[in-house]
Amino acid sequence: MSPSDNDLVTIALMPSGRRGQVPRGTNLLEAARRLGVELESICAGRQTCGKCQVVVETGHFPKHGLTSAADHLTPMDGREAKYLLDHQLAAGRRLACACEATGDLLLLVPEESQARKQIIAKAATDRAIDVQPAVRQVYVEVAPATLDSHVGDWERLQAALAEQHGLRDLTIDLSALAALQPALAQGRHAVTVAVWHDRAVLRVQPGYSEGAYGLAADIGSTTIVVHLCDLRTGAVLATEASMNPQVRFGEDLMSRVSYVMMHPDGTEKMHRAVITTLNDLARKAAQAAGVKTDDVLDAVLVGNPVMHHLLLGLSPVELGGAPFALALNSALDLKAAELGLRLNPAARAHVLPCIAGHVGADNVAVQLAEAPHQQDDLMLIVDVGTNGEIVLGNRDWLMTCACSAGPAFEGAGVVSGMRATRGAIEEVWINSRTHEPTYRVIGGGPPRGLCGSGLISLLAELFITGVADKGGNLDLGVSPRVRAGEHGPEYVVAWASETAHGRDIVISKVDIDNLMRAKAAIYAGFNVLAQSVGLELSQVERLLIGGSFGKYINVEKAVQIGLLPDMPWDHFQFLGNTSAMGAYLALLSRDARVAVRAAAEKMTYLELSADNTFYDAFTSALFLPHTDLDRFPSVAALVGAGRAPQTEIAP
Amino acid sequence: MSPSDNDLVTIALMPSGRRGQVPRGTNLLEAARRLGVELESICAGRQTCGKCQVVVETGHFPKHGLTSAADHLTPMDGREAKYLLDHQLAAGRRLACACEATGDLLLLVPEESQARKQIIAKAATDRAIDVQPAVRQVYVEVAPATLDSHVGDWERLQAALAEQHGLRDLTIDLSALAALQPALAQGRHAVTVAVWHDRAVLRVQPGYSEGAYGLAADIGSTTIVVHLCDLRTGAVLATEASMNPQVRFGEDLMSRVSYVMMHPDGTEKMHRAVITTLNDLARKAAQAAGVKTDDVLDAVLVGNPVMHHLLLGLSPVELGGAPFALALNSALDLKAAELGLRLNPAARAHVLPCIAGHVGADNVAVQLAEAPHQQDDLMLIVDVGTNGEIVLGNRDWLMTCACSAGPAFEGAGVVSGMRATRGAIEEVWINSRTHEPTYRVIGGGPPRGLCGSGLISLLAELFITGVADKGGNLDLGVSPRVRAGEHGPEYVVAWASETAHGRDIVISKVDIDNLMRAKAAIYAGFNVLAQSVGLELSQVERLLIGGSFGKYINVEKAVQIGLLPDMPWDHFQFLGNTSAMGAYLALLSRDARVAVRAAAEKMTYLELSADNTFYDAFTSALFLPHTDLDRFPSVAALVGAGRAPQTEIAP
Repeated sequence: MSPSDNDLVTIALMPSGRRGQVPRGTNLLEAARRLGVELESICAGRQTCGKCQVVVETGHFPKHGLTSAADHLTPMDGREAKYLLDHQLAAGRRLACACEATGDLLLLVPEESQARKQIIAKAATDRAIDVQPAVRQVYVEVAPATLDSHVGDWERLQAALAEQHGLRDLTIDLSALAALQPALAQGRHAVTVAVWHDRAVLRVQPGYSEGAYGLAADIGSTTIVVHLCDLRTGAVLATEASMNPQVRFGEDLMSRVSYVMMHPDGTEKMHRAVITTLNDLARKAAQAAGVKTDDVLDAVLVGNPVMHHLLLGLSPVELGGAPFALALNSALDLKAAELGLRLNPAARAHVLPCIAGHVGADNVAVQLAEAPHQQDDLMLIVDVGTNGEIVLGNRDWLMTCACSAGPAFEGAGVVSGMRATRGAIEEVWINSRTHEPTYRVIGGGPPRGLCGSGLISLLAELFITGVADKGGNLDLGVSPRVRAGEHGPEYVVAWASETAHGRDIVISKVDIDNLMRAKAAIYAGFNVLAQSVGLELSQVERLLIGGSFGKYINVEKAVQIGLLPDMPWDHFQFLGNTSAMGAYLALLSRDARVAVRAAAEKMTYLELSADNTFYDAFTSALFLPHTDLDRFPSVAALVGAGRAPQTEIAP
Repeated sequence: MSPSDNDLVTIALMPSGRRGQVPRGTNLLEAARRLGVELESICAGRQTCGKCQVVVETGHFPKHGLTSAADHLTPMDGREAKYLLDHQLAAGRRLACACEATGDLLLLVPEESQARKQIIAKAATDRAIDVQPAVRQVYVEVAPATLDSHVGDWERLQAALAEQHGLRDLTIDLSALAALQPALAQGRHAVTVAVWHDRAVLRVQPGYSEGAYGLAADIGSTTIVVHLCDLRTGAVLATEASMNPQVRFGEDLMSRVSYVMMHPDGTEKMHRAVITTLNDLARKAAQAAGVKTDDVLDAVLVGNPVMHHLLLGLSPVELGGAPFALALNSALDLKAAELGLRLNPAARAHVLPCIAGHVGADNVAVQLAEAPHQQDDLMLIVDVGTNGEIVLGNRDWLMTCACSAGPAFEGAGVVSGMRATRGAIEEVWINSRTHEPTYRVIGGGPPRGLCGSGLISLLAELFITGVADKGGNLDLGVSPRVRAGEHGPEYVVAWASETAHGRDIVISKVDIDNLMRAKAAIYAGFNVLAQSVGLELSQVERLLIGGSFGKYINVEKAVQIGLLPDMPWDHFQFLGNTSAMGAYLALLSRDARVAVRAAAEKMTYLELSADNTFYDAFTSALFLPHTDLDRFPSVAALVGAGRAPQTEIAP
């Protein structure tokens, strides 16, 4: 053994299994870094944040070729001991920044000490994402002012950030600057600083402080959803949703564009409406999470092009006609306050990029969540909303298009429709003999209306049991539940006596027509997209379904009405709200923001309005399930059998 | 002659005298550039802006070794001819961008075609500054949108800016983005874009458009001055001034700091007060210049540290005691709207840097205007205001200090005081026998009060004629004009019958005490600054006087009261408002913004409040002209003669 070997110790880190030698006396935080394990540290080794905890394993570990013991570390000093005591940590835990290796060590790095925590995107593919948000916090100790030096507090903070965290060329927001002197006084020259993209200081707080939050918002044509997230852990602390208030200016995208064409102040009105709602949702989410909106420092916003333009206060008029020119298609970084968002005054907003006239950032967000450009299988992804967006392709090519489905699947534009929240009927079964329905209500209890999945299920059951024909016409003689209503024939799903509001819950012929137009638009979109690249829908290997109802949809029923193509059930997967998921990923990952740009650039857009084949495909799909029954063999078999199979449930 | 020589032509450009050869057929705009003469061009050679006009000289020019003729250029096309006709330009003018050299040419470049116009800083040293403002306009033609390409308008504008002007990696403000689509439509794909520091698009206008303005603002403790400037030509279009409304919270800096110490909302109140005044002045200046405030795209702001902090909404409390820590001392770039300034929504604001606790950006602005760090002479520069700032040094070293003079020299805190505007008595003569005064009023007409220079002149005359003694006490028996007033003894300068407002204009013992404290503070500052580097004031080779009264001050009188040191008259020079001049230079020159940083870094600051010698020097200076008459030999000679010389003017 050479003398120099005497000066090296072996360290193995679990669970990564990384192992190597470092000079004896190396600080553990530094040792882990050299071996490629990044421990979390907000205070940069000042024994203040307690984020770099490790567990020392004791014993002989032949696999790692070492014997590890607690005394292979320098002993605890008072500061570390006090931290461990104050925070009642289990024996064996040490702060990596506070001790040096004096012998071989096997260390366990608890999940919370790993710098890049992984969050699992709750999508079909369960992708793991490293948490590295655009806004992060650092703890820093600043040299005090002296009479001799005339360097300002901000300049001394900059010097400290450069020295202690390697952060250089930073700017500072005015609100953070105003907080700087009091924070330095209160924190005795130590402050916690929130930094955006390692470029700008957004907030300064006295001493060591936690709590930096972000907002991921999906602005759908009909529904707006926000997730409030902890930017350090990636945890979703609260989720809030509400109706897009722009609905009162027009139900679908084109009617909102028309509204702006006819009302010069339409852009400003709809811009303000969506901002007001986002502020309401952010406030509610913050309340629910026990967080101040002032501590929300970043926001990622996503929406289809019309929503995107109105969010930014840009006129959507050009999106109303060829060549459907976007004002911008790239991602945009701005201050949240510039949009009118009431978060921290220095909070930033990142608006995800669009692709083309009717395919928006929401679609791009789907790419981020599902990464079809990294998959071999031929995938068809559909985000079912008022604006249905479809992607077809794999790692070699990606095509996309958008079709205006109308808001029926979001429960809007339907007499008894509602969002998929408590009290919504989400599934319906109809007895083929009695034509009496049974239903399941979200949250149990008496029903208040029908959400998208309930409507699909209901329409399929009406068709399969013969209450409705392939044109969607209701058979008035079949049951007392089918009656002549105000808006033509209607079927009563729940009598007033059993509902929460004491009114009948019905589906009318008008509702059915709306649903059939919506499903026909989406199916036609599938069709034209596949045709455009010379493929058949049957060649699709995976079909991923997103949208705000994605979690609840019954595939069998969706195929029966002809919304989804007839393919083996194991080809289908549910994604939930993929747009919101994309916004969430971009909020927590700077890499994701880069990836989304790459995905957007890879995508080829097919403009349906410039394509006559779309109208033909749409017309053919305006039946249950379709003009061409050959496309739906499983449904043809059912209907051909004279009567449909069904779940027999006693009324 | 080789064949290749045949392909070259000789071009000489006047008045620069640059001369060289370029390939035959070279575009004149390009040819001038290659020979080192930058012609102005907003449209980048599109024959739209007409800024690159040249005059073709005709004849044989032996000195240049060429024969020049109008037909040594390619003939006019319809577009150029139309431009020249539409704008009724003299014969011989051509648009350089529209023609190519086919033979030797002598070209005259009119001043307005030179890209970097020079403005002359109207200071003692008459420095010439290149006009290259942070915000400039460019004309650009953007490719139209097509159905096939899904690139947004902003992305196509970026491509055009890169190709036509070499501008890359630009961001765009939301207000400019909102204007983009309508501007492209109205301008038929051509727009004029205002760009900040070649980094951000602030404004987009349809077609070719002129009109980008900037605001230079000097925020003095007592007076606020703004200049509205044309950013292309450097011309000052309007100047407005008013009292700093913060005066109602405290006359001098320390009383405003005290106000904040006692009132938690003091910072916010004073911040809002100054912003409101700046908005008023900007609006008035724009009106006077016939310009919209929406076309004001840049602002440079300057003030001493307390004014600087309050402008930014930062508490000045730390500036009230040792170690006098500044919140920041470097220059700050932000959006004008963030400060509450109502200019163009995307307008930027540049706040000049501070040096130390009581020496501010205004002092730095003086450096910019006077450049003592480039001079050999030992210079003493004083900016006389409520906060007197003094610089001593030359190209080798620079010392600075600040002393609180109070607002007396700005006409505030004095019963009959007023700003140096129409109606102010700016000079007074007193007959040594009758003790009757004569005076000169700014703008003629009946007087309304006394401005700073009038007060200095009056106090000197009172002393020299024996109406006041060296302690500033008025001799009640000497004339009916000396009487017991409400605030002690007072001298009547103008009877009610001769004034504009029908009230007597007087100077009281209290006023005299204020003036003596003010002059003592400044003189003590000179003294201590010189002492600190082991120099005598008599070694100073040039004494430059700035401040809002600088243009009018009578040096003889200022020496007689002991405000300025007794030195040969040719050593004195007047600068006018140097702070406003510095702001103006920084508005029009990016180089000046860099230079000001260098000047600030070079400066050594002397904190007077930490120096006991200041208090001694101040006390010694609380006499007319000073305790030590040896320092003022010219005044001693006058007083020693028993009676003062004077301008004999019949009463």
